[in-house]
Amino acid sequence: MRHIKLTIEYEGTAYAGWQVQPNGLTVQEVVEGALVQMLGTPTKLRSSGRTDAGVHARGMVACFTTEKALPLRAFREGLNTLLPPDIAVREACEVSLAFNPRSDASCKHYRYSILLDPLRSPLARHIAWRIGMPLDLDAMRLAAAHFVGEHDFNAFRASNCVAKTTVRTIYSVELVQDGSWLHIDVNGNGFLKNMVRVMVGTLVEVGQGKRPPEDIARLLVERDRQVSGQTAPPHGLCLMRVFYHEDPLS
Amino acid sequence: MRHIKLTIEYEGTAYAGWQVQPNGLTVQEVVEGALVQMLGTPTKLRSSGRTDAGVHARGMVACFTTEKALPLRAFREGLNTLLPPDIAVREACEVSLAFNPRSDASCKHYRYSILLDPLRSPLARHIAWRIGMPLDLDAMRLAAAHFVGEHDFNAFRASNCVAKTTVRTIYSVELVQDGSWLHIDVNGNGFLKNMVRVMVGTLVEVGQGKRPPEDIARLLVERDRQVSGQTAPPHGLCLMRVFYHEDPLS
Repeated sequence: MRHIKLTIEYEGTAYAGWQVQPNGLTVQEVVEGALVQMLGTPTKLRSSGRTDAGVHARGMVACFTTEKALPLRAFREGLNTLLPPDIAVREACEVSLAFNPRSDASCKHYRYSILLDPLRSPLARHIAWRIGMPLDLDAMRLAAAHFVGEHDFNAFRASNCVAKTTVRTIYSVELVQDGSWLHIDVNGNGFLKNMVRVMVGTLVEVGQGKRPPEDIARLLVERDRQVSGQTAPPHGLCLMRVFYHEDPLS
Repeated sequence: MRHIKLTIEYEGTAYAGWQVQPNGLTVQEVVEGALVQMLGTPTKLRSSGRTDAGVHARGMVACFTTEKALPLRAFREGLNTLLPPDIAVREACEVSLAFNPRSDASCKHYRYSILLDPLRSPLARHIAWRIGMPLDLDAMRLAAAHFVGEHDFNAFRASNCVAKTTVRTIYSVELVQDGSWLHIDVNGNGFLKNMVRVMVGTLVEVGQGKRPPEDIARLLVERDRQVSGQTAPPHGLCLMRVFYHEDPLS
């Protein structure tokens, strides 16, 4: 039995998120469909996590097991022939059977992109949250620093999030300005449902002067989703990369 | 009678180019449709030029005349309400009745984007020409320099291009690398049909070592389309901006 780790890029615009669900086509379903075609047997994927409808990925990680003795390159090339233009396998490698793409992840990097523009931009419409008014980036950077470290993120998750523990560690939150673009790069050991989007939505309220930067510290202590900020829209978010400690086979 | 100049951004993926034509929906048609809805009378646009099917624009310029006494902001906002998500008016200003968006243009800036990547990229698929092998940028820069100046571009146009004169002036051709992206910025006083795309296709052949950089000089003198390079695909191309000498009313 071989255990194959795929790194997958997709534009999430047309999908109801990563994970198979009753309403709407998902990325996982499409990749599993391509695996069935290639391998001839129903094949399930285990992923590093989920992404919401409309969220993109450059480096989603998902694994499957197979008996096929194909070279790794054939998995990648074969799947890319079968997958639609908005999904591609960027890498296929072999990992130990014990490898768990979710629990073995040491760090995940998400990027949230904001376009600071008073007018709508057709070319950015699927990949950025457009905000028409200027943001106070200094205040947002002060606020972002409060996220770094181990905290209880109960105030920063979807109301229907079912995770048992809400403690996560954020390694860094960086704001990178590039012309009228603002990228918010978040690295952490794990994320609750909608966590990055609520973090970004709250940071934007700081940038608009609706909250002081110190609010973040208070929200992390008070743990009340009712008083944290809006959930930023999904299409600005991209799962950039999932990091793992070295795997002996990879 | 007022003469209104629009600056229009669009993602060209879904359209059969800018100009109205029998086969397929065009951007011009969609904007003219929005004008009819807003103004109540059939209204024709005169543009700075055309773009091919799949080509994008950040700054297409198109003008119309109207008797309506609306404020300029209302033209912009009204049209943006009526236009689909992949087309937007970025600016509306009033120009003299004598203003001609095509012949009064002093410079046009096109950007051609190449993604240097051995694997296909879903997130870049509509906005870049993906090339799997590395390119010799030094050779391409040497080649690009030959385009600068006034030349006969007969070898660098579509075979069905009907322009009477094929002499154009190129002000600059710059290659800008940004990670795995290569942007080719071309500024000139005017462009023949497919001209930027044939220029880029020929530059890429230089970058692949299939031609020496000096070939460009020879092609400009020999004027033979049969011996110049391939036509680069449309989706890497974007009309960035059209420049005009000052207009008294704008």
